[in-house]
Amino acid sequence: MIPTIEWHGKQVRMIDQRKLPHKVGWHICRGYKDVVKAIEGMVIRGAPAIGVAAAMGLAMGAASIRVKSLDAFRDRFTRMADEMSKARPTAVNLRWAVERMSRVVEKGASGSVESVKKALRHESEKILAQDIEINKKIGRHGQRLVPKKATILTHCNAGSLATGGYGTALGVVRAAQEAGKDVAVLADETRPWLQGLRLTAFELMQDRIPVTVIADNAAGSFMRRKRVDLVVTGADRIAANGDVANKIGTYQIAVLAKENRIPFYVAAPLSTIDLTLASGDLIPVEERNPREISHLGDKTLGPSGVRAANPAFDITPSKYVTAIITEKGIIKPPFKTGIKRFF
Amino acid sequence: MIPTIEWHGKQVRMIDQRKLPHKVGWHICRGYKDVVKAIEGMVIRGAPAIGVAAAMGLAMGAASIRVKSLDAFRDRFTRMADEMSKARPTAVNLRWAVERMSRVVEKGASGSVESVKKALRHESEKILAQDIEINKKIGRHGQRLVPKKATILTHCNAGSLATGGYGTALGVVRAAQEAGKDVAVLADETRPWLQGLRLTAFELMQDRIPVTVIADNAAGSFMRRKRVDLVVTGADRIAANGDVANKIGTYQIAVLAKENRIPFYVAAPLSTIDLTLASGDLIPVEERNPREISHLGDKTLGPSGVRAANPAFDITPSKYVTAIITEKGIIKPPFKTGIKRFF
Repeated sequence: MIPTIEWHGKQVRMIDQRKLPHKVGWHICRGYKDVVKAIEGMVIRGAPAIGVAAAMGLAMGAASIRVKSLDAFRDRFTRMADEMSKARPTAVNLRWAVERMSRVVEKGASGSVESVKKALRHESEKILAQDIEINKKIGRHGQRLVPKKATILTHCNAGSLATGGYGTALGVVRAAQEAGKDVAVLADETRPWLQGLRLTAFELMQDRIPVTVIADNAAGSFMRRKRVDLVVTGADRIAANGDVANKIGTYQIAVLAKENRIPFYVAAPLSTIDLTLASGDLIPVEERNPREISHLGDKTLGPSGVRAANPAFDITPSKYVTAIITEKGIIKPPFKTGIKRFF
Repeated sequence: MIPTIEWHGKQVRMIDQRKLPHKVGWHICRGYKDVVKAIEGMVIRGAPAIGVAAAMGLAMGAASIRVKSLDAFRDRFTRMADEMSKARPTAVNLRWAVERMSRVVEKGASGSVESVKKALRHESEKILAQDIEINKKIGRHGQRLVPKKATILTHCNAGSLATGGYGTALGVVRAAQEAGKDVAVLADETRPWLQGLRLTAFELMQDRIPVTVIADNAAGSFMRRKRVDLVVTGADRIAANGDVANKIGTYQIAVLAKENRIPFYVAAPLSTIDLTLASGDLIPVEERNPREISHLGDKTLGPSGVRAANPAFDITPSKYVTAIITEKGIIKPPFKTGIKRFF
């Protein structure tokens, strides 16, 4: 598997996910602003992956700060961190990573600017390595929920490309296959960006895991016809009560899973849980450019001047969630107390 | 409004819906086989419209039969009728129209071949004119269900372009507007063919009815956020118990409407009701080419060789349907007895 993002000398490079699967190529970031733009423009996406990217971007940005005093350094770093944390609003991992990097700066108060820069670079490498380890743990816990032979429905891409590597929802799929289970994936194409068709199918085909893509509007029909054994998705933010913000379309899959008595699992690292928000309705939902709906690249799909609405995420109330799979184990309802126990 | 389909001398011409909204142009059919192909290839689509097209195609085909004896004519006509009724499997209006045309041939047993040909042409004109009248009646009945100010969610295109004119679901919208109500439409884009984005938005924009297009996977989120007052869709076939076959995605909208206590209405002529089928699971569901999912025109969207599944319709069990709006009035549950009363 190609790495989603990596250090390349003093630069950060990431697979340009806008161009997958047709072109597998690096997008080079030479400064932190390049990383902010890459996150905004979805060169890299997926809650854990943009957390990793933010950390690496800040380490790169810090390295370029040309000041001698730690106070001046801290000022400049704080401005960068603010900018970085605003790149996209919904995934809390971005803010989590920025805060973790900021703590390194605070801790380094007694050292030199150079030592703090080194510590930031080291921290970003640790966040990347830990993310992959966390996903493998999520996979190990989650695969216990997968029957010996199962068709798993997933939405968007919560795979290797959405993380430092291995994936959250697709980590569960990979771990189930590694455990010798006979798994197949039904992947929602996931409009408008087609992460399911372009990224999830691509990843799984590389790993020789059987995958069939369907239109988002077909998921319910497959569930009703008993063609789905379980659903696993990732998450962009989970509130303290277990409500889940994830890619637009997740809510309706969760409702349909419940209606058809199919388990609906969310696989996510603990860094996705935002204890500061009591419920999902407090999570900011990004509204993206309506052109993503009315156009494909430069090609107009609809009538000229058509109005479109393009919320990028939705909120799934916790009552539709069967369990949350984390690196520390599986959280079952009631989520409010279950989540507390994990922190 | 441009007519969906019309006689042009001895030819049948229809707006080529594959090319809308970018190009508004006629597709000319010179023989009944052209009409079969046009229905198969979705030059014209929508259950009532393909019923009208089948009738016109058969009248055109009949006119070209060069025999003197009525028996020989009947043989040739029956073969054409068989071929026509197989063009697409799900919408029962196709079979309904073919049967209605076949009855004209049976009735004409005592006349000449030429008189039967004339009667067939006349019958096809009547089917077209009646379809428009029926839709206006559906609209008048249906608009009573629309609040004074309402956002109506619809799926696919059950509009003028799906019928002889005026539309079924969009007929309800048009009638509500004509009755002075303040209506706006939320249109699912409806993958993979994008009938919502390409056709519904196009029609409504021409009529200056406010329309906003959303991805199919966003419908649930809009319902949960109370941005939808009612749902109206068309139907391709309705079983005797009220189960509804309609464009893939309808089932999940119906489930989500029920979950969010939003009325879910189906607007369709009585010719869409198939009394020979006790339940929706007996309705044949067309599986179309997976390339419609993995490609856009000639452009590959997904990885090379990706597997996709492309059911074109789904079945909505009647328990999710609030009411069926027909030209004779509104059928409410229990549908089995309600439907019987209308025949």
